[in-house]
Amino acid sequence: MDDRPSYAEEKKKLRNRLSRIEGQVRGISKMVDEERYCIDVLTQLSATQRALDKVAIELVADHTRKCVIGADGPEQSERTEELLEAVSRLVARR
Amino acid sequence: MDDRPSYAEEKKKLRNRLSRIEGQVRGISKMVDEERYCIDVLTQLSATQRALDKVAIELVADHTRKCVIGADGPEQSERTEELLEAVSRLVARR
Amino acid sequence: MDDRPSYAEEKKKLRNRLSRIEGQVRGISKMVDEERYCIDVLTQLSATQRALDKVAIELVADHTRKCVIGADGPEQSERTEELLEAVSRLVARR
Amino acid sequence: MDDRPSYAEEKKKLRNRLSRIEGQVRGISKMVDEERYCIDVLTQLSATQRALDKVAIELVADHTRKCVIGADGPEQSERTEELLEAVSRLVARR
Repeated sequence: MDDRPSYAEEKKKLRNRLSRIEGQVRGISKMVDEERYCIDVLTQLSATQRALDKVAIELVADHTRKCVIGADGPEQSERTEELLEAVSRLVARR
Repeated sequence: MDDRPSYAEEKKKLRNRLSRIEGQVRGISKMVDEERYCIDVLTQLSATQRALDKVAIELVADHTRKCVIGADGPEQSERTEELLEAVSRLVARR
Repeated sequence: MDDRPSYAEEKKKLRNRLSRIEGQVRGISKMVDEERYCIDVLTQLSATQRALDKVAIELVADHTRKCVIGADGPEQSERTEELLEAVSRLVARR
Repeated sequence: MDDRPSYAEEKKKLRNRLSRIEGQVRGISKMVDEERYCIDVLTQLSATQRALDKVAIELVADHTRKCVIGADGPEQSERTEELLEAVSRLVARR
């Protein structure tokens, strides 16, 4: 038995996070509009980046558990290489 | 004579960028909704992070040019320390 | 048939990279010693960080290919979670 | 009166940090040599990256306080742009 949340639950969780991030970006836009102090805008922006990092890590985890581990043979090799390429982009911010 | 864009122009540029980023985040949400392939979602997410990095760097530049360089004495010291704290958060992703 | 380099070759490649990084760090120390211009030191430091990022990505790839893909059942689950934790540390710089 | 450490003290502190980082990189090389578990090597590598991040932030702070704030006119503009370019490289890991 697997006690990880079902895909429907994970999807809902991801969408809630992304919806909050969308609100954060809108908030930053409003702060720029109101000519708020740069440092306060930057603090909000750092928080948004951390939130995006968490979504990225969640997606890497989903992909590894579902698409890499579950696959077999050549398909597994291909998906592993895709995963490593994606991780490389996240780490090196390319 | 200063040939840098006026603050009104810079503000408009920043808001355009943020508006595009908001659209990118909404697009990622839609991709999750449509159960698109994780790796494609991650590629879009990396692009969004790079776009946010650019806004952050633009804000650091604005703050340095306007609030640090222009200030004097104790105010300048205080604003420099605030700037360095913000840069530290960006670099170390805290 | 697997056309990836053998472990001995990969190990040699990793050690060469790390040896170059060690030299880069020693070079930075020397630059500080000689009171070289901060910006030049920072340029060298950014190059060193990129080199370390590459080693990290290489280690993630090795672990995924050898310890995750090759394992089975509970061991595979455990190693996947360890991998995801390590990737999370790299992305979020914790 | 300025209560920040003198340059000699800061230089000594930087060199001590860099010397520790050099030791950390040598330790990672040894771990690879002994075929230690990838995840343990990655943990050590993440710690090394955080240590380098701290040195980078310290150098940005030094440059800002000494070379940007102290300069005047065109020299100050030039040094500010150099600083912003260096920060940009650190944030975007270019």
